[in-house]
Amino acid sequence: MVNRVAPAPSVPAAPGAVFDWLDETAEQRAAAGLTRTLRSRPADDPVLDLAGNDYLGLTRHPAVTRAAADAALRWGGGATGSRLVTGTTALHTELEEELAAFCGAEAALVFSSGYTANLAALTALTDPDTLIVSDAYNHASLIDGCRLARADVHRAPHSDPRAVADILAGRARRRALVVTDSVFSVDGNAAPLAELATVTRRFGAALLVDDAHGLGVLGPGGAGAPAAAGLAGAPDLVTTVTLSKSLGSQGGAVLGPRRVVRHLVETARTFIFDTGLAPAATGAALGALRLLRAEPHRADRAREVARTLAARLTAAGLHASTPDAAVVSVRAPGPEAAVAWAADCRRAGLAVGCFRPPSVPDGVSRLRLTARGDLTDTQIADAVRIIAATAPEGAETAG
Amino acid sequence: MVNRVAPAPSVPAAPGAVFDWLDETAEQRAAAGLTRTLRSRPADDPVLDLAGNDYLGLTRHPAVTRAAADAALRWGGGATGSRLVTGTTALHTELEEELAAFCGAEAALVFSSGYTANLAALTALTDPDTLIVSDAYNHASLIDGCRLARADVHRAPHSDPRAVADILAGRARRRALVVTDSVFSVDGNAAPLAELATVTRRFGAALLVDDAHGLGVLGPGGAGAPAAAGLAGAPDLVTTVTLSKSLGSQGGAVLGPRRVVRHLVETARTFIFDTGLAPAATGAALGALRLLRAEPHRADRAREVARTLAARLTAAGLHASTPDAAVVSVRAPGPEAAVAWAADCRRAGLAVGCFRPPSVPDGVSRLRLTARGDLTDTQIADAVRIIAATAPEGAETAG
Repeated sequence: MVNRVAPAPSVPAAPGAVFDWLDETAEQRAAAGLTRTLRSRPADDPVLDLAGNDYLGLTRHPAVTRAAADAALRWGGGATGSRLVTGTTALHTELEEELAAFCGAEAALVFSSGYTANLAALTALTDPDTLIVSDAYNHASLIDGCRLARADVHRAPHSDPRAVADILAGRARRRALVVTDSVFSVDGNAAPLAELATVTRRFGAALLVDDAHGLGVLGPGGAGAPAAAGLAGAPDLVTTVTLSKSLGSQGGAVLGPRRVVRHLVETARTFIFDTGLAPAATGAALGALRLLRAEPHRADRAREVARTLAARLTAAGLHASTPDAAVVSVRAPGPEAAVAWAADCRRAGLAVGCFRPPSVPDGVSRLRLTARGDLTDTQIADAVRIIAATAPEGAETAG
Repeated sequence: MVNRVAPAPSVPAAPGAVFDWLDETAEQRAAAGLTRTLRSRPADDPVLDLAGNDYLGLTRHPAVTRAAADAALRWGGGATGSRLVTGTTALHTELEEELAAFCGAEAALVFSSGYTANLAALTALTDPDTLIVSDAYNHASLIDGCRLARADVHRAPHSDPRAVADILAGRARRRALVVTDSVFSVDGNAAPLAELATVTRRFGAALLVDDAHGLGVLGPGGAGAPAAAGLAGAPDLVTTVTLSKSLGSQGGAVLGPRRVVRHLVETARTFIFDTGLAPAATGAALGALRLLRAEPHRADRAREVARTLAARLTAAGLHASTPDAAVVSVRAPGPEAAVAWAADCRRAGLAVGCFRPPSVPDGVSRLRLTARGDLTDTQIADAVRIIAATAPEGAETAG
């Protein structure tokens, strides 16, 4: 309840003064070197892109763009309403069935983004009598899902099944859900899924895996990290994926037992109260999925490019991560050096990601490279040459 | 802290047992008649659609579907990354500039859905020293945004500027944000925006308006509810819109002072950690916006269809709402009767929305009709005839 005396608005300030505080926070960010700005790219950008999440290079594949275009022309620009009212087309159902089959799950449910898929899974599959155990390095959408859920949330040390077991062993709640990314975005390291599943089963907990960076890259033919860990179709596993990375489109999905999907249809607020995914995005994802099924080597190639990139960067004397999927990170000596390094790469024709505090959980600044499966050997060589040539002092392993 | 003794998992149940409780809740919903199921529609659905939110009937307009298809072919199936990394194309920038100009705002920022746009506005524009005053009938995404915000949230009686003033007068927090839908989805009634703005200014609060159901329908040429209320471009106003209703696409946007948009770019988690809106959806929204600018009578026509529908349903002896925008609701005598009524309409070739508890804030079940601006007089007559012919006992005003 409000019980203090209100500040008397005897002389109201100018209306716009209500947002003066935003300028103050902007100045603080600028002083800390944390200003972020949008860069608009042209359609014919000549830059070599190792910054996006288009892991298989499918977003501009003719089969994918044609599928998107055809879906828009046939079904319309939008889904027109909530999936529960008018927003479910036969195309959505096709995608859900084929995605579930591809990943070895009983059923799938498509959302307008991976963010809303994660919010749905975390809020609908938990209640006040649930303990959520969430990996310390989990994605922002999982963290926000934990905050929206009406459950008891416990943060677990990064990739530590033993710590998860201790937390589960001491739980007071009837139910428990362990939540982890399958591949952590910043460094590209994989979670110990098989070990986590052993722990969750021992303690009667469910496992929720965000396979945003695993689908299309890990597992047989790109079927994802759960498939790679022998967990596909497990009755206690729920997987979320994005359609916007390996599948070159937009949107997300939740995969799992049929009763989980039915429960989400009936109760998940970000499913019920959001407009369905646009037909073009649905068609693009379906097109990419079919392409990947027909050409399963694409997943292997992405992992091969990652290993090659990491090996050559290491050979060039840089601190490259050991890639578990299609992401390679390279350590920078500090946040300013990382920003300058990425800018130098861009001037040389190479776009790379740049992660620095507060966006990195361990405080280490680095470049982030996407090992796109469609990179040619020449492009890989160019990328390594540019990154090595622009490396700041202190970036070398022997430095 | 966890301090009770854990239930010893001495005899672990089958792994799938972790989701047995979902079946129990499904049975409870079934017993209460609240089961929801997905219905998949074909591309050539012959049903007359008054259930979606395609207010101007633009989602299948050739200019819109062609713009979506061209964008996919030119830019790719997806945006490839966060708007801050690789996900901002020149097309996003065009849409943001034209949308802001259309609505009379300084700047706009496009999101992958209206849901994530609302989460962004509520979380980024508030802090622990902020009081949020939220209308009791607000949309689920605004309610979830309030729950995610680290602010003090106060629920205000529906459409009651005097009550809002009382809450603001008694506030202990330094800042305040008043949040409302411009048009409430269920009944289609408009919020008293001008009165709310007077109150927020008097008490030094900002105003956040979700114009999902107003854009394209209200204001000069469809410029939206804030424009209709003389508030376009106000320095203390932030508006959120969807691209998935009048604009026939998918996505959402936040419009407001330039410093608000800059703040969202730099701090809003659902902007930073989500993939950018797909090019096809961006193109479709841009196509619809340009069409609406060239043919501003489309907005008037949607309101005219709503008034005609309501008048004829009232003349037929039914409880129709007085439409402020392009939504008309018709009262049903109860939830089962509403469901049966909607099903009878569908069998007769007419799709209508059906709202019942717990999705209606006032407990009243009703049919919800979208007064699409592209409906012909014959279609309007057909719709009224079908609704009247299938009306259950107790639906009549004199009944």
